Amino acid sequence: MDYSTSLDLDDAPREGVMRFGPSAPLRLDSGGVIENLEIAYTTCGRLDAARSNAVLICHALTSDQYVVSSPPNGRRPWWSTMVGANRPIDPARHFIVCANVVGGCMGSTGPSSIDPATGQPFGLSFPFITIGDMVRAQAMLVEALGIETLFAVVGGSMGGMQVLQWAADYPERLFSAVCIASAARHSAQNIAFHEVGRQAIMADPNWLNGDYAAQGVRPEKGLAVARMAAHITYLSEAALHRKFGRELQRDGLSWGFDADFQVESYLRHQGATFVDRFDANSYLYITRAMDYFDLGAGREGGLAQAFGGARDVRFCVFSFTSDWLYPTAESRAIVRALNAAGARTSFLEIESDKGHDAFLLEEPVLRAAIDGFLHSAALERQGS
Amino acid sequence: MDYSTSLDLDDAPREGVMRFGPSAPLRLDSGGVIENLEIAYTTCGRLDAARSNAVLICHALTSDQYVVSSPPNGRRPWWSTMVGANRPIDPARHFIVCANVVGGCMGSTGPSSIDPATGQPFGLSFPFITIGDMVRAQAMLVEALGIETLFAVVGGSMGGMQVLQWAADYPERLFSAVCIASAARHSAQNIAFHEVGRQAIMADPNWLNGDYAAQGVRPEKGLAVARMAAHITYLSEAALHRKFGRELQRDGLSWGFDADFQVESYLRHQGATFVDRFDANSYLYITRAMDYFDLGAGREGGLAQAFGGARDVRFCVFSFTSDWLYPTAESRAIVRALNAAGARTSFLEIESDKGHDAFLLEEPVLRAAIDGFLHSAALERQGS
Repeated sequence: MDYSTSLDLDDAPREGVMRFGPSAPLRLDSGGVIENLEIAYTTCGRLDAARSNAVLICHALTSDQYVVSSPPNGRRPWWSTMVGANRPIDPARHFIVCANVVGGCMGSTGPSSIDPATGQPFGLSFPFITIGDMVRAQAMLVEALGIETLFAVVGGSMGGMQVLQWAADYPERLFSAVCIASAARHSAQNIAFHEVGRQAIMADPNWLNGDYAAQGVRPEKGLAVARMAAHITYLSEAALHRKFGRELQRDGLSWGFDADFQVESYLRHQGATFVDRFDANSYLYITRAMDYFDLGAGREGGLAQAFGGARDVRFCVFSFTSDWLYPTAESRAIVRALNAAGARTSFLEIESDKGHDAFLLEEPVLRAAIDGFLHSAALERQGS
Repeated sequence: MDYSTSLDLDDAPREGVMRFGPSAPLRLDSGGVIENLEIAYTTCGRLDAARSNAVLICHALTSDQYVVSSPPNGRRPWWSTMVGANRPIDPARHFIVCANVVGGCMGSTGPSSIDPATGQPFGLSFPFITIGDMVRAQAMLVEALGIETLFAVVGGSMGGMQVLQWAADYPERLFSAVCIASAARHSAQNIAFHEVGRQAIMADPNWLNGDYAAQGVRPEKGLAVARMAAHITYLSEAALHRKFGRELQRDGLSWGFDADFQVESYLRHQGATFVDRFDANSYLYITRAMDYFDLGAGREGGLAQAFGGARDVRFCVFSFTSDWLYPTAESRAIVRALNAAGARTSFLEIESDKGHDAFLLEEPVLRAAIDGFLHSAALERQGS
């Protein structure tokens, strides 16, 4: 790893790829193993002398490690409302780490990585991964970066699932945890929407049973449909109405199947731009990992038992009133389990009509609440 | 028309196709014309001597005219909870008429009909249709059946849109109207879900720009994905949870993309069976007609003005608490407009966790309320 030498030079964002090599394979929940694991990540800020100010950010389904700097595709960093100068997560105070999940397509080992055994992309020969595997890989990264305890692990949506998994699997390595707009397990409706997206991808003749990369094609149409269906679930009905209503693209109806309504044009754009930045097989694998997520399953004491080791972790859980993908009831279930486990838990349902995506958008109450939570946790940590 | 002679023989269900011929073209809202319109329909019951007991049932997006008898595909009649012996709409009391909408694929003229000009199915050369066009065709049918005034027009979902359109366009030919789980216009979210379905169909290489029938293929995969996405919107999250939760198909996870969860298997089944009974182009045209539906648009007085001629019609409007496709707020908007127009309106929001599809399912409160409404309307009609 040629990177660790520069950890404490300045606050600027840095990119790196941690290569674990054959001596540190990632052992998977499925029983499989990933040899030569690579985890692509970014950091920002300086790890303090006590190594006590590291904040790990866990990204959502289609996000990446570019939380403050721009990714190579030129998009804006995805969480600039929450991370950056004068933000709750601030490189002036925190050493910020964000890693592309294993199974992803932004540099970490995933189905589009080259299988050394064949010289071709893994495709469907890539092993199945879980949220637990993602977190295990992050734990390896964090350890390799010399961080024994994270000051905070923070994430929304699938990132929030990782936060909960961290609390279940590595509570002793966490001081605080922030889980936003998430759930401790995927509901039937969540699974159903993901299944529609997967079927759309797999129906695309260019998917080629996952072998499209070797053939030099991409299942773009199927992936675009998957993204369109998912995107509707990220917004509230009210947000769609406020943004678009029944506004037309042009004067009058086209009497055709062109995009007459602005909402159609917007969705098509969401689909079309997504295929340029995301890999279809990663979409299959990561949605599957989310569907499989059920943190309380297989434990006699259910979810509360999962958090049994986390009673010293300070938790903050957020939901949004108009989030129908991971509604407040899911967050309440998390909070009930945390309370039952004796963990120190704050919970806030934020009034917002922006739907699930509110966690990515400008939400002053969310920002202020996370800022306050992290400041008070920092004071506690200094005192502890 | 070889059918009208048998109208009053007995109560048994009958099927017919009304052929209007070149002298009675259907003039469309788009400016187009359908020559030689054919409307496939079923009836049940006897038209009474005063011709005062006719009930027109308007079907939803993917339904058909088989409201009491079984269609040729062997499926069950789709509204047996509401129509039949000892049901609110009862052939012992009512002369029941239900017609396949124009643009449909169960015998009425639609994109899969043969274009006499080419000898091939119309495909995308079929003219665009609206809910108004569907109702205009129904009005022609009803007139051809010798019915001057309908005792009631009844429908749920897209059927409810037709009910409202009837009230706007032919109020003098209605005695009462029942609109269930519907809306006076399609919302941005409604349009968005339809657009996902259309894109899924059009992404299927077998769609062939609508020419698939001439080539002897069908865009089955795309249509199945469209159906899966739509089907999620017909159920509530609670209904999906109650039906499936996270129940698995087998013991343990497959660690694959097979249908692990019962909800996945159910959705796949919904998609697979749908393609056997529905035409992809009809799906495009009918969803488009629904998206275009906005009964108050282009009227200075909005929706209330649309109902201006309907103040003597008795209305009954129903919504379901868990219907997130056409939520209660949409029904309230209809009721407000009806009240503003001075129409006689009952409204009931029914407590149900079954989602939008509740109107098709066993809902005792709905059944009792419609039964009561139609009985009291019949008493009024006798007195009038």
